[in-house]
Amino acid sequence: MTRSDSLVPQSLSLFDRAAEVIPGGIYGHMSPVLTVPGEFPYYAERAEGAYYWDVDGRKYLDWICAYGPIVLGYNHPEVEEAAEIQRRKGNCFNHPAPVMIELAEELVSRVDFASWAVFGKNGSDMTTWSLQVAREFTQRKYIVRNTGAYHGTHAWCTPGHAGLIPEDRAALLEFPWNDVEGFKDILQRYPNQIAALITGPFHYPAFGDSVLPAEGYFKEIEALCRKHGILLILDDVRGGFRLHRGGSHQSLGFTPDLICFCKAIGNGHPLSATLGRADLKTAASKVFLTGSYWNSAVPMAAALTNLRVLDRIQGIEHMSRIGSLLMKGLEVAANENGFKVKCSGHPAMPFVRFAEETNFMRQQEFCSLMAREGVFLHPHHNWFVSCAHTEVDVLETVEKAKSCYRQLKK
Amino acid sequence: MTRSDSLVPQSLSLFDRAAEVIPGGIYGHMSPVLTVPGEFPYYAERAEGAYYWDVDGRKYLDWICAYGPIVLGYNHPEVEEAAEIQRRKGNCFNHPAPVMIELAEELVSRVDFASWAVFGKNGSDMTTWSLQVAREFTQRKYIVRNTGAYHGTHAWCTPGHAGLIPEDRAALLEFPWNDVEGFKDILQRYPNQIAALITGPFHYPAFGDSVLPAEGYFKEIEALCRKHGILLILDDVRGGFRLHRGGSHQSLGFTPDLICFCKAIGNGHPLSATLGRADLKTAASKVFLTGSYWNSAVPMAAALTNLRVLDRIQGIEHMSRIGSLLMKGLEVAANENGFKVKCSGHPAMPFVRFAEETNFMRQQEFCSLMAREGVFLHPHHNWFVSCAHTEVDVLETVEKAKSCYRQLKK
Repeated sequence: MTRSDSLVPQSLSLFDRAAEVIPGGIYGHMSPVLTVPGEFPYYAERAEGAYYWDVDGRKYLDWICAYGPIVLGYNHPEVEEAAEIQRRKGNCFNHPAPVMIELAEELVSRVDFASWAVFGKNGSDMTTWSLQVAREFTQRKYIVRNTGAYHGTHAWCTPGHAGLIPEDRAALLEFPWNDVEGFKDILQRYPNQIAALITGPFHYPAFGDSVLPAEGYFKEIEALCRKHGILLILDDVRGGFRLHRGGSHQSLGFTPDLICFCKAIGNGHPLSATLGRADLKTAASKVFLTGSYWNSAVPMAAALTNLRVLDRIQGIEHMSRIGSLLMKGLEVAANENGFKVKCSGHPAMPFVRFAEETNFMRQQEFCSLMAREGVFLHPHHNWFVSCAHTEVDVLETVEKAKSCYRQLKK
Repeated sequence: MTRSDSLVPQSLSLFDRAAEVIPGGIYGHMSPVLTVPGEFPYYAERAEGAYYWDVDGRKYLDWICAYGPIVLGYNHPEVEEAAEIQRRKGNCFNHPAPVMIELAEELVSRVDFASWAVFGKNGSDMTTWSLQVAREFTQRKYIVRNTGAYHGTHAWCTPGHAGLIPEDRAALLEFPWNDVEGFKDILQRYPNQIAALITGPFHYPAFGDSVLPAEGYFKEIEALCRKHGILLILDDVRGGFRLHRGGSHQSLGFTPDLICFCKAIGNGHPLSATLGRADLKTAASKVFLTGSYWNSAVPMAAALTNLRVLDRIQGIEHMSRIGSLLMKGLEVAANENGFKVKCSGHPAMPFVRFAEETNFMRQQEFCSLMAREGVFLHPHHNWFVSCAHTEVDVLETVEKAKSCYRQLKK
């Protein structure tokens, strides 16, 4: 494709400029090499509700929601008003602002097992700190996670391979998702040495289908953790406040000991949090945690309003319903054109791909055609529904999908 | 002291409420146990320029500046306007906004040796990532730092002790600040095994005097690094944009290979950055880095304006001048009352303490009296000057210090 054919020439030329002064031009999960290079936009200009506009002035109905943070819709007026009221007073002080206490109380009241909360900026800040709390509490060393699970970018869990040393993962053990026997095997090999199991609410690997927990899986995992004195950490950074108003475990029927939130907590305002069981509070107070902006008040004020609005509009139910409709609609649209698709994941974080393909080439083509039609989907990363999405948005998406599947059939 | 005697009863009662739902009530560097418990305020209500107000309605002339981030003064109108213009368009998108490129270009143009930039949220995000880039580039394992230096809260460098395992620091070597022979000794013991030396622009330990680099120290360190193929990383998280407009090394006469910024970069808006040498760009593009809010546009827009205003008003020179005046004034005020004080650190990040004391008790008393007078200083952490501080603020501080030293003499 030449530059002049592109629908996103401004994105491409900004990217050329960026590549001069930024390694890779755009790095991390937003890197064009991880989307559809040359077809997807690279730069955003503005956003509102369920829509955003790229730097070429193209408007997209957005099913990615900034990879999760946007849960009420972009630039939600009530959240932004709460943020603005706090901003006028100030954001980053010598001390926390009272809103920190109010937010901790609000979160503790929502998360059934938790009696305390702390705050950070990144998801990784909280997942890593939780492991340290578990190590301090149990005085054990090993951490268990699921193979291929994403828990952030710190050395113990980054999906990258460069710049690591063997010590970074010396105390990390893995077993496949949903494989209770795999966990039991680890328990046998490392008796009384495991501090914690860290797990997401379901499995959402990049370049793969999402997998929900098998019937009874978490109950069994929880029982094994209790029996062996292992702390169960729920990494709810991605699922939090989409599956349940107070921790995804409450929709899955189990109880962790620590839970990490980020993304949807503040509708895009930078904040993460960990909540924990009462008897972990002393250990938690010993593991040093802080950061230059961790006590900043604006994201906390935004989060407090975000969570309350989420309740008032019954956002959890809404997102689940919309996501289910979207999956169903895309399946019908695909079938009508002779394609079999696999719908996976929780409805509020759905993923739909061609079922009979061994790679993601056709999926990229489909997402590229959809982007041309003004609908933004991701070819190999789970999608995110927000409360700003409506049934009409689903219908529009499905109608456009029909046209794109039809084009692919040719 | 009983509650009713306190000048900060609202802070104390909010703290009681916080302690119910937050481990330690307030954690990290803002923890009251790290200031003057019962005397210093614990919660901030609002701030403006060089002043802030606590939740008891008390106004403080502030020499801590949120522990560094506030460099132009709280709620700086131009920075907030730039942030608000971007905020109306949006903050956290599916893609970066064009302002990311503009900010990278601005930073690269300021930092003499650098050709590229990346952005994160915390200082630790950037110091840790820089080590990984150094390991990737050199294919070596060990990291060297100065004993007692602060580089963030990740496991390899946290000042805390809880929750760590031996592997966290297995590849970390240390030598005392300003001790070239100590560095040479390490070089001899670990030939061709050291990836990087990470250093601040000067030594600013908590509970101690700051120490500037000795004459020729950095030149010698730099030459040793070059000779042994070791990358020199300047952790300018605390000093950046206070000592120099484009990296503190430019005021100290040496050249690092990587530099980490945070704090003063965005006048309180959450952002950190690493810049590096051209030939490190490939390694940098390989070490995965990302975070939920790392591409958010508002802090980048704020930073761009912050840095330009800093130039326009000659903020670096201003802060240095004000800090020098403050140190000189406090010294005179102390001497007049028979106290010898030690002034240390860079003038823009000064620290003044009782010279003949073996602990910080009298220093706490002094800071406590100053807080009662409405001047906020820290007993054992370096202070920060901002561009909002004036000669009148220095005079006011010195006048009040005279009164406080006088009270202490009794």
